[in-house]
Amino acid sequence: MDVALLARVDGKRDELSHIPGTSAALRRIKKEAYYQHIYHTAGIEGNTMTLAQTRMILETRLAVGGKSIMEHNEILGLDSALKYINTTLLHRVGRVSLHDLLQIHTRVLGHSDPLQAGRLRTTQVFVSNHIPPPPTRLQVLMEDFVSWLNSAEAAALHPVRYAALAHYKLVFIHPFSDGNGRTARLVMNFLLMQAGFPPVIIRKQDRMLYYDGLQMANEGDTRPFVRFVAHCTEKTLDVYLWATKESLPKIEQQQEDQQNTPQNTHTEHTTTTETELTTGKIRGRNVEI
Amino acid sequence: MDVALLARVDGKRDELSHIPGTSAALRRIKKEAYYQHIYHTAGIEGNTMTLAQTRMILETRLAVGGKSIMEHNEILGLDSALKYINTTLLHRVGRVSLHDLLQIHTRVLGHSDPLQAGRLRTTQVFVSNHIPPPPTRLQVLMEDFVSWLNSAEAAALHPVRYAALAHYKLVFIHPFSDGNGRTARLVMNFLLMQAGFPPVIIRKQDRMLYYDGLQMANEGDTRPFVRFVAHCTEKTLDVYLWATKESLPKIEQQQEDQQNTPQNTHTEHTTTTETELTTGKIRGRNVEI
Repeated sequence: MDVALLARVDGKRDELSHIPGTSAALRRIKKEAYYQHIYHTAGIEGNTMTLAQTRMILETRLAVGGKSIMEHNEILGLDSALKYINTTLLHRVGRVSLHDLLQIHTRVLGHSDPLQAGRLRTTQVFVSNHIPPPPTRLQVLMEDFVSWLNSAEAAALHPVRYAALAHYKLVFIHPFSDGNGRTARLVMNFLLMQAGFPPVIIRKQDRMLYYDGLQMANEGDTRPFVRFVAHCTEKTLDVYLWATKESLPKIEQQQEDQQNTPQNTHTEHTTTTETELTTGKIRGRNVEI
Repeated sequence: MDVALLARVDGKRDELSHIPGTSAALRRIKKEAYYQHIYHTAGIEGNTMTLAQTRMILETRLAVGGKSIMEHNEILGLDSALKYINTTLLHRVGRVSLHDLLQIHTRVLGHSDPLQAGRLRTTQVFVSNHIPPPPTRLQVLMEDFVSWLNSAEAAALHPVRYAALAHYKLVFIHPFSDGNGRTARLVMNFLLMQAGFPPVIIRKQDRMLYYDGLQMANEGDTRPFVRFVAHCTEKTLDVYLWATKESLPKIEQQQEDQQNTPQNTHTEHTTTTETELTTGKIRGRNVEI
């Protein structure tokens, strides 16, 4: 069942890879996915901004009255981390360092908690049923984790399995005082992007399924979590394919009813690569599903 | 003239030192000064929050709609730096380290620019007519500055002259990419607080006088700047003395017209030391005016 699912996901990724990067529809869905990614990954951690507020904050840098300043800073931190990934890490396949991971965390947590950002935690933490390793072991565990990330063993895995396991291993270690989930989702996503996949959006409404998968992985069975991530990847690919297919045949029509069919809008502003969710080159690896 | 001014300032400091720390009026003016300090020091750098908005942000941590998120973060950074000074540096007289100064800057700039916070700049900067030293010399210059801060020569100066010169020397070096003025005013103020003075409020409406003083110091004459700081210190002391004297004789009256005479209000919430502008012990030093 996993084999069929992953093969389907690969097929959809290949289909997506044939859409030219110049496609306005592709750029639009990437930008939309960028905002949605930030909205959902912050929302999973309890951030109460709506998608519209998230977009407004990122486009204007102006505050939403009545919301906590920290909720704004969580949005800015995710934006900063994604830009860092898009401009720096995307093509560093198989050469991820601990420094890179700390740099991501520096940005995720920086605006809201500058004193803890980019630092391994120094106290014990408790995550529902899971007791992560003590702070004294974090340095070694993180170095082991990075070795695994760059190992031949990891490179032999299907990219979705590799990315999901990286996510699971990182939240198991729980290296930071805060921002572990957001950092783990970003790491998972840049590994997926390195393999030519769009970043997965784990929707806040799927939070319980997501936690169940992680919980089962903690108990020794990582398969449900990998399957969950594969399903999310497929869903994300479907949205990309739908958004780009819908508009392609109509590319010459400059219709006036654009506001009713936003997927057909071709008059958007040009966006920079930094505010898109970039997909990198397809990773040349010996794939084992 | 300076001698008379500094002697007057000393007298007022001594007068203030006789007001018991338990005085509700003293606590109230300290809290008010805390908000005003943040309001003015941010305002000098262009922050557009009103005093009421500044207070609201610090009391509720909620955002003001339509203001930039960065302006909120500047307020939070100053609050964090002041709390750090109040709880950590106030009694470390004559033992200031470069690490302490970087810790202040980490907090001043942390929320708004976590990547530059607590770091010496790595590029050349230009500050109107003044070209600060190149980044390659900053480490040595800052170590020299810290040696001077802790020197017998500095300890022999009148505290107001000492604090004003420390401010001037720090903005001359301009060690940071941003937040130099705010950090210099905080350093000036914790040196004043160590000597039993309340922290000086440099009002945003006095910005031009303040810059003129710094400019003349750059040209070789530090006296106008010291005099400016002494005048601000005297003004601040006058406000403290006025606010505490006004209310003392009426301390037993529980009047109902408190809203019209806020300086007579005795029903405020208990505040923690952290949100007051603390004055430390009077520094035992051989004072040379």
